[in-house]
Amino acid sequence: MPDNETAFRALLDHMAVTSDLSQTMAVLSWDENTYMPDGAAEARGRQMATLATVIHERLADPALAELVARLEDAGLPEDSVEAATVRQARRAVDHASKLPASLVEALSMHGARARSVWARARQESDFTSFAPELARMFELKREEAEVLGYQDHPYDALHDLHEPGSTAARVRDVFVPLRRELTTLVAEIRDAGSQIDDALLRQSFDEAAQERFALDTVTAFGYDLEHGRLDRTVHPFATSLSKYDVRITTRYQRHYLNTALFGTMHEAGHGLYEQGVADEYYRTPLEDTASLGVHESQSRLWENLVGRSRAFWEGAFPRLQRTFPEQLGTVALDPFYAAINRVQPSFIRVEADEVTYNLHIILRFELELALLDGSLSVADLPEAWNHGMQEMFGITPPDDAAGVLQDVHWSIGLIGYFPTYSLGNLISVQLFDAAVAAHPHIPADIRAGRFGTLLRWLRENVHRHGARYLPEELLERATGSGLDAGPYLRYLKAKYGELYGLS
Amino acid sequence: MPDNETAFRALLDHMAVTSDLSQTMAVLSWDENTYMPDGAAEARGRQMATLATVIHERLADPALAELVARLEDAGLPEDSVEAATVRQARRAVDHASKLPASLVEALSMHGARARSVWARARQESDFTSFAPELARMFELKREEAEVLGYQDHPYDALHDLHEPGSTAARVRDVFVPLRRELTTLVAEIRDAGSQIDDALLRQSFDEAAQERFALDTVTAFGYDLEHGRLDRTVHPFATSLSKYDVRITTRYQRHYLNTALFGTMHEAGHGLYEQGVADEYYRTPLEDTASLGVHESQSRLWENLVGRSRAFWEGAFPRLQRTFPEQLGTVALDPFYAAINRVQPSFIRVEADEVTYNLHIILRFELELALLDGSLSVADLPEAWNHGMQEMFGITPPDDAAGVLQDVHWSIGLIGYFPTYSLGNLISVQLFDAAVAAHPHIPADIRAGRFGTLLRWLRENVHRHGARYLPEELLERATGSGLDAGPYLRYLKAKYGELYGLS
Repeated sequence: MPDNETAFRALLDHMAVTSDLSQTMAVLSWDENTYMPDGAAEARGRQMATLATVIHERLADPALAELVARLEDAGLPEDSVEAATVRQARRAVDHASKLPASLVEALSMHGARARSVWARARQESDFTSFAPELARMFELKREEAEVLGYQDHPYDALHDLHEPGSTAARVRDVFVPLRRELTTLVAEIRDAGSQIDDALLRQSFDEAAQERFALDTVTAFGYDLEHGRLDRTVHPFATSLSKYDVRITTRYQRHYLNTALFGTMHEAGHGLYEQGVADEYYRTPLEDTASLGVHESQSRLWENLVGRSRAFWEGAFPRLQRTFPEQLGTVALDPFYAAINRVQPSFIRVEADEVTYNLHIILRFELELALLDGSLSVADLPEAWNHGMQEMFGITPPDDAAGVLQDVHWSIGLIGYFPTYSLGNLISVQLFDAAVAAHPHIPADIRAGRFGTLLRWLRENVHRHGARYLPEELLERATGSGLDAGPYLRYLKAKYGELYGLS
Repeated sequence: MPDNETAFRALLDHMAVTSDLSQTMAVLSWDENTYMPDGAAEARGRQMATLATVIHERLADPALAELVARLEDAGLPEDSVEAATVRQARRAVDHASKLPASLVEALSMHGARARSVWARARQESDFTSFAPELARMFELKREEAEVLGYQDHPYDALHDLHEPGSTAARVRDVFVPLRRELTTLVAEIRDAGSQIDDALLRQSFDEAAQERFALDTVTAFGYDLEHGRLDRTVHPFATSLSKYDVRITTRYQRHYLNTALFGTMHEAGHGLYEQGVADEYYRTPLEDTASLGVHESQSRLWENLVGRSRAFWEGAFPRLQRTFPEQLGTVALDPFYAAINRVQPSFIRVEADEVTYNLHIILRFELELALLDGSLSVADLPEAWNHGMQEMFGITPPDDAAGVLQDVHWSIGLIGYFPTYSLGNLISVQLFDAAVAAHPHIPADIRAGRFGTLLRWLRENVHRHGARYLPEELLERATGSGLDAGPYLRYLKAKYGELYGLS
């Protein structure tokens, strides 16, 4: 029997190879989403399926499971890098070995099918055609939850895949006050009577100039083009092909400045996180990030707390005016700042502002929870959706395409995933507040176009740790407190109270 | 023991997975050469090394060797697809299992080292610093040849990797008359006294316009952008990421039209071959191409026999004039046709014209043969190089950077590879002649911008067969004769005799 050190080294060797293969999968996926010619889709699907099988076989290798079990019993100090490495390896091993191949295949096959039925259903706003596919997906996901195991609610098993250590109950704890207070805030803004006009953002903006401005902005944030790049895609994303190759994409709308401007900041925030993981975690199970929620906190922090702040634009607006002199040369800062922060209850999540965004998420969370435990049937879903919209936003979608059919997620089995978007929003403010408390000159820095102190604080307290800590543990270490909706609500009330003249 | 059909099916299953992984390697490599950020080089190296190991393990799997051996004894009809499949699998298995891991690693490590020493040596024109690295590489390649096995000359083992079934003796058979006649032709052209001026190609040409013209041209040839794409790289290449995804690259020189124009046709010729392999060979050992020589015949056919022909430009020149009206609007066809076909003995292979190109190759073939069998020492190489240049071209390189140090190939162990370039040239004319003999209207088609008949003939007689036949076998089937320098020499003499007014 090997000693602990030998066993740990063997674990690292095994996982390093697995890491190379996972990174390779990310290359296949990046290429598929950027430059792959259309006619290659089927062949690419085969390549990815084959590589997934190779990776799965490595993770389901009994020799690996034995190493992990051996190291779990080795009495590694609980707070050590080694223990965290073993914990992450355990997650990977369990996921690979618990799910029977038949279920993995059923999920993948049904996901492809349901996605295509969903696409047609959305186009025709025909929920009925999608309903049986969705019902079947929820069945499969319930099955997955049973196989993976949970304590309180099947939701926990699925949610934990994206947000390790979190549960439905934990999410509900923060979503209940969030729902109440946001619903009130939305109503107050609606009733305030002061309308913000964002026509100035809807002029014609040359796309190459948009790209230059966006690239200048995110490289000023610290996004490293020596280890990254920016491309164009219909659906923007950030992806790590290794921490030394973290790529982002964006899309440009000639007649709407926000899309590329804040979209690029958002993806660069994700990219900064991946680029900042400690070098010593490269090719180890700790090279991952803490969770999707923490990931989203980084994108939102740069997009919203920096990018949609008055301080940032006090510094950056003249540069934007020089980029678009005809369109913005005579516009004052205040109306611009107001325009980029306009609040407007709307049907579509991905177009939502900071205030209403989380209500979209809360609606989805409540519904998927109910669908999963059977307290809501798929047939009743559209009505429940519209009811929730009316309750929280005071509006009802004109049809299911603008309602329950708008997101692709459920069709491909992403259930237990939506809450991470809101957790990210909440965490972004908690982290930003802590950074400013540690370095009160950060707002002045942002005004001056200097982002180094903020980035260093994030590097030190979030990025470098990779997957070493569970998300709430990471948050506690960085801010001194666990997940809390308070700071986010205070931030919104202060910012939007001023913008909309609320008392 | 499985029956033959079961065994054959198992072989196909095994090789299909290997094919997906090899295609994945091609994606990694394409990305490395196009869009990968510089800082990712080391991580990409690890990903590729890991994937290479996975592929190697699959090919060296004793179960695969057993299947192959079993099927070799199964009495499959010699001319059957099944027998060809087994033969190709045997090549892969042998290559994977004969070479010890230590030698593979030594070749890879030394290749990386020698390449970097070579790059510096070339820059400083300092052969002495490169000499020990080159000597070591030839040692390792001799070792590789011994392990792989050969009948007559160690060269055969290495050459066969690129040109299955060919040998040094076979190459010498065609190179001896080729050398003699080309040397005479070069001297005749030099002595003819009529100089061709190519200044008209050296004006300023907008790069985007060059790209449009090149793309229009190669898509007219039949290169399929639904299953391919064109990107920019410093070193142009074509690569198959599966027969449904065959990508080419090119480079643009603002002040020299030929580079992108003929470079893109050349790579598209390679691409057309890969795109044309039969669908039923996809993910089988027959999805490869017959050899590098046959591959080069396709690039040269489209670049030279079509692209540098008078017939082609009789049709296409007005389009080029419309693309560059200021530069070419008043130029007549004859001086343009002469300029793109200017013959000029020069030091650098990659810049050589159709007449002198093969002499560059013959020089390298003679030298690497002598270095490999020890009849020439590395120390004496520069002198031998310069002597050969004087003998064949009548010129002597000013320094080793323009002489023996110009090519990267030997530094990375590509020995036995150079002849395939010339084999490609010879084969291109043999195939073109056969296509025209079958369809005498092909030259008129080319003049009219129609390439369908020519492409269909190539598809039918070359492309679709993939790796089903050995190169000479393929050539015999397509043209009725084996490798022969005669047609190529006749083609050159007719074309350049007319251009240079030779008797």
